[in-house]
Amino acid sequence: MIVNPSVFGHIGTVSAIEGGVCAPKGFFAGGVRCGIKAGGSKRDLALIGSERPCVSAAVFTANRVQAANITVSREHARSGRIRALIANSGNANACTGAAGLEAARRMAALAAEKLGIPEVETAVASTGVIGVPLPMERIEAAMNELTASVGAGAAENDAALEAIMTTDTRKKAGAVVVDLPSPANQKTDPAPRISSMAAGAGSGVITIGAVCKGSGMIHPNMGTMICVITTDAAVSPPALDRALRRAVNRSFNRLTIDGDMSTNDMAIIMANGAAGNIPVEYGGPAWELFADALEGLCVSLAREMARDGEGATRLMTVTVAGAESEEAAAVLARSVAASNLVKTAIFGADANWGRVLCALGYAGAACGSAAEPGFLRSRAAGTETAFNPEKISVAFTSTAGRIEVFREGAPLSFSEAAAKTILLEDEITIEVTLGRGKGAASAWGCDLSYGYIEINGDYRS
Amino acid sequence: MIVNPSVFGHIGTVSAIEGGVCAPKGFFAGGVRCGIKAGGSKRDLALIGSERPCVSAAVFTANRVQAANITVSREHARSGRIRALIANSGNANACTGAAGLEAARRMAALAAEKLGIPEVETAVASTGVIGVPLPMERIEAAMNELTASVGAGAAENDAALEAIMTTDTRKKAGAVVVDLPSPANQKTDPAPRISSMAAGAGSGVITIGAVCKGSGMIHPNMGTMICVITTDAAVSPPALDRALRRAVNRSFNRLTIDGDMSTNDMAIIMANGAAGNIPVEYGGPAWELFADALEGLCVSLAREMARDGEGATRLMTVTVAGAESEEAAAVLARSVAASNLVKTAIFGADANWGRVLCALGYAGAACGSAAEPGFLRSRAAGTETAFNPEKISVAFTSTAGRIEVFREGAPLSFSEAAAKTILLEDEITIEVTLGRGKGAASAWGCDLSYGYIEINGDYRS
Repeated sequence: MIVNPSVFGHIGTVSAIEGGVCAPKGFFAGGVRCGIKAGGSKRDLALIGSERPCVSAAVFTANRVQAANITVSREHARSGRIRALIANSGNANACTGAAGLEAARRMAALAAEKLGIPEVETAVASTGVIGVPLPMERIEAAMNELTASVGAGAAENDAALEAIMTTDTRKKAGAVVVDLPSPANQKTDPAPRISSMAAGAGSGVITIGAVCKGSGMIHPNMGTMICVITTDAAVSPPALDRALRRAVNRSFNRLTIDGDMSTNDMAIIMANGAAGNIPVEYGGPAWELFADALEGLCVSLAREMARDGEGATRLMTVTVAGAESEEAAAVLARSVAASNLVKTAIFGADANWGRVLCALGYAGAACGSAAEPGFLRSRAAGTETAFNPEKISVAFTSTAGRIEVFREGAPLSFSEAAAKTILLEDEITIEVTLGRGKGAASAWGCDLSYGYIEINGDYRS
Repeated sequence: MIVNPSVFGHIGTVSAIEGGVCAPKGFFAGGVRCGIKAGGSKRDLALIGSERPCVSAAVFTANRVQAANITVSREHARSGRIRALIANSGNANACTGAAGLEAARRMAALAAEKLGIPEVETAVASTGVIGVPLPMERIEAAMNELTASVGAGAAENDAALEAIMTTDTRKKAGAVVVDLPSPANQKTDPAPRISSMAAGAGSGVITIGAVCKGSGMIHPNMGTMICVITTDAAVSPPALDRALRRAVNRSFNRLTIDGDMSTNDMAIIMANGAAGNIPVEYGGPAWELFADALEGLCVSLAREMARDGEGATRLMTVTVAGAESEEAAAVLARSVAASNLVKTAIFGADANWGRVLCALGYAGAACGSAAEPGFLRSRAAGTETAFNPEKISVAFTSTAGRIEVFREGAPLSFSEAAAKTILLEDEITIEVTLGRGKGAASAWGCDLSYGYIEINGDYRS
């Protein structure tokens, strides 16, 4: 796991280390096989938790069709005190009606009972096939083994991670150690954004760790993206919530594998304060550093998910700079990363800048307006001034080089052979500059290959 | 061409006939090869027009990156008097800067000069590769041959159609004859929506014809959807404009091949009044019938484009009923038709209703909110009451039968073998009912196959 250093621009230090959810102090994890997944010997039931009470924050899928575990976890998350998560793979517990909701509540209750904590301090994650009743008897029968399996080592982290994976081909985990600025250092911040209330907050060395699964926004028959983040930092509830939301918006929300959104997606962070730092409050440089470190960790996991996208042969990063705002840049970057025509061009190692321009052009209109939705309009849109194709430049880059193909509205002549050499690498970047403002954002995706069709077209055949 | 009879619910009659843009009285068409398309002997320059002045209406792509011909046509269309269209294939004249704009104006001027009409009464369409200067000298050299080639027969219609096709594998054209209600009949309308002003307007027999190209919202290296519609009806400008907009919104705007939107899309209708009918005014039963006939024609062409989608092996219709409004139903239907996971499932003849539900669930959220865009939300959306998964039912149908797989929020057990038999047909329908209101809409698309990857991934290799 490599944290993208470019996201760190503050005082203090952030170091990537090996590890996952057990890297921070006071957390444990475990995973066993209870038999939900058909055949094989893969684990399918996981438990991740903290030895002490936590402050928590969580985000859930915006899909209106939600799995039962999302309903229960959302309820519990309102406590802001989630300290344990029980998760299964092999069954999404989605579209399973009242019995499914009962099963999700039962999973939470089982975890709470074994850990001796209130049910409202537990979350539940499920991933796998939908519309099939969750075999609660197998989960119940495995609970003793599950609680006996937990520990704080790399093996236990990996066991928990394996138990939430479905068609993932890579294990996705990471951790960072953050040396939060001391009050003395904070005073030397050349551009202090520190409020008097937050002054001095945060000092200390803390660790953030995470495990993550997902190789499509949906997996065959409804999978999910699940990200479980732990930290031993002491963080105030609003500071934690804002840090998670910003990190998710800049990482998982800028990831697109196939444009589909799961019924089961969730990302959760539990902070147990075991590091003994001065609590991080929202608004000061300690928060900025904490939030940046969390964002870097989430971005690295988002990139790993894109690389592991169904059928993917290449990781594609789209960077947009010079937009009016970060959000405008993100909308444009996501539109390019999500375009089937861009994705197939990248699969073919084809520097097809026309498709990039086209996806930029329809980004703002893709949703249509309430008055006149759709592709064709009978009037020139009044917002056209927000986007000037004549200032767009496009380049393709990889470790094999950089080639500019379009500059300020005009195509450049370039060597197709040189472009192909660049695009045949495993990681490629499409760079877009707009020349309008200072807004910048990245989005991540992958190519669209025969493998995607094979995985998703032949899946149940 | 078969007009979907279900769209006609008014007095008067509509009959589908063979033909295209030359079916209505007083129109001509022609097509020649001028050499824009590399190699081969395919035509690439077309002219379609009316012998007498027209009232016109047009809609253009909402993509902010627009080809030069769109800019010029949009300007000219403001006259409301377009009576001729010149079109080329093999070159989209997009991203070609000031020279491209000059070329598009020159094309319009050449057509106007040959026909002896004002330039503002001409439109220009281009489709093909982008970023390559349009070889105007070839177009200029072919103008005499082009104008000599025009006629009003089936051969001339086909020549014009061939000259605007790119990777289309089928010719898409159609025509309908409409017997507009006489004033006497209008009085017997059991549910009169007729205004006193419009009473009696419209009587007479009129014809509408069309040709169309497109097999992806974008073709390799930027193609386009072009639809040219002619009618000999006398229609007032506002009546024509509203009829075209409604027809396009219910047909081409509900078509999705790959979710990408071209820089060159346009649909135009020219009405020359040669039928001698009492002019159709907006608001009466004559307008309703005219608009329905136009819509039926556009829907049939949209279905033909979906069937001819790049790599398509099946035509997929998604019907949504029981929504709060037609627009809500259309958003949901389009979301299902555009889902890569639904499309790959249909390719695999897999009755994967979970993916259908999932695409319904994220339809409203796909655009995000301004405050909190993206896939993951930290709050329950306030709009969740607008959509109740517990009332959803889903069925798959084809000529081989109908199978319900999900009823009022719960999965049904069904025969996978029977479902596969149904889904192996060339045309399949996904039926969704929501149980909320009376809004209904259809969307059209196709499956996502290895062929799509081959066409778009290997295209420039």
